[in-house]
Amino acid sequence: MQLLKEKIIHEGKVINNSILKVDSFLNHQIDPLLMKAMGEELARRFQKDGVDKILTIEASGIAVAVMAGLALGVPVVFARKKKSSATDDTYSAPVYSFTKAEKNNVTVAKQFIMAGENVLIIDDFLANGEAAFGLAEIVKQGGCKVVGIGIVIEKTFQPGAKKLADAGYRVESLVRIKSFENNQVNFL
Amino acid sequence: MQLLKEKIIHEGKVINNSILKVDSFLNHQIDPLLMKAMGEELARRFQKDGVDKILTIEASGIAVAVMAGLALGVPVVFARKKKSSATDDTYSAPVYSFTKAEKNNVTVAKQFIMAGENVLIIDDFLANGEAAFGLAEIVKQGGCKVVGIGIVIEKTFQPGAKKLADAGYRVESLVRIKSFENNQVNFL
Repeated sequence: MQLLKEKIIHEGKVINNSILKVDSFLNHQIDPLLMKAMGEELARRFQKDGVDKILTIEASGIAVAVMAGLALGVPVVFARKKKSSATDDTYSAPVYSFTKAEKNNVTVAKQFIMAGENVLIIDDFLANGEAAFGLAEIVKQGGCKVVGIGIVIEKTFQPGAKKLADAGYRVESLVRIKSFENNQVNFL
Repeated sequence: MQLLKEKIIHEGKVINNSILKVDSFLNHQIDPLLMKAMGEELARRFQKDGVDKILTIEASGIAVAVMAGLALGVPVVFARKKKSSATDDTYSAPVYSFTKAEKNNVTVAKQFIMAGENVLIIDDFLANGEAAFGLAEIVKQGGCKVVGIGIVIEKTFQPGAKKLADAGYRVESLVRIKSFENNQVNFL
């Protein structure tokens, strides 16, 4: 997606060989017009898959997921990150964050994952695939089907995308980055 | 706002005399069309106030704030809730949550609050005003002006709105609730 590539080139900050900061338009400050364009593009890619619901994770996934939900005409659920264990009323899965070096349980209230639904998972970054696998686990716990995983920025040099593909999931990423070198972003 | 009132009547759950759960369309599952309508209505109310930026707080404020930002053509920043203290690079203010009975620091990276800007604060609920005052404090730390505070659901029987008005802030709420009785919501 050209618009996003340009935004990354102009505003992204390469922190080291594996971390890209996009705080100025995605993770802290949000560019609403870009979110709309990205949400619509993700919606377009899954338009024929009978999506009933979108599942994302707080907080950075929410804006783009809501724009995709608007385009597809479906509700969006955001999973919560909690250190505490799940209650009887929630589905839950452990997610390890390499960036923060901590494990959280992500939880979703059972009433919002209704058996038989087709669920599209949306998240901002795909690196090791931890969040996506956690969300997919919750979808399965609820007796639903993952129709695909929509990602804003995929880092192809980390194992997440391959692991998800090996597990049978369809991954659609708006941009794919193959490396960071000398503070530059190299797109695939 | 009639659409929101109807949603609250049909899907809101009165937990006790002061707590309303709107998890099915605002705080956990999100209704994108409703967010769009609410964001546009908040934008309309502040259309003539020269808003440069919207400031909200993760996670439930993000969806409506982004829709308002889209309508006004301005970026949105979401403050982060952190237990840790602020760093040199962030503005920060303590916010006590009565619902969760815990105090968090809310923080915003300094680079996203630029001196001289007109900032519109948006949040999902207004009860005791803790979050709004915390966000207003951050806006002031950054040398900016709070042009107003846009709220989805105001509980008029709690002191937040009056305290904010007394402090000179303009508050615009999409719905105002005067009490919960016998599991019913009484709008003002």
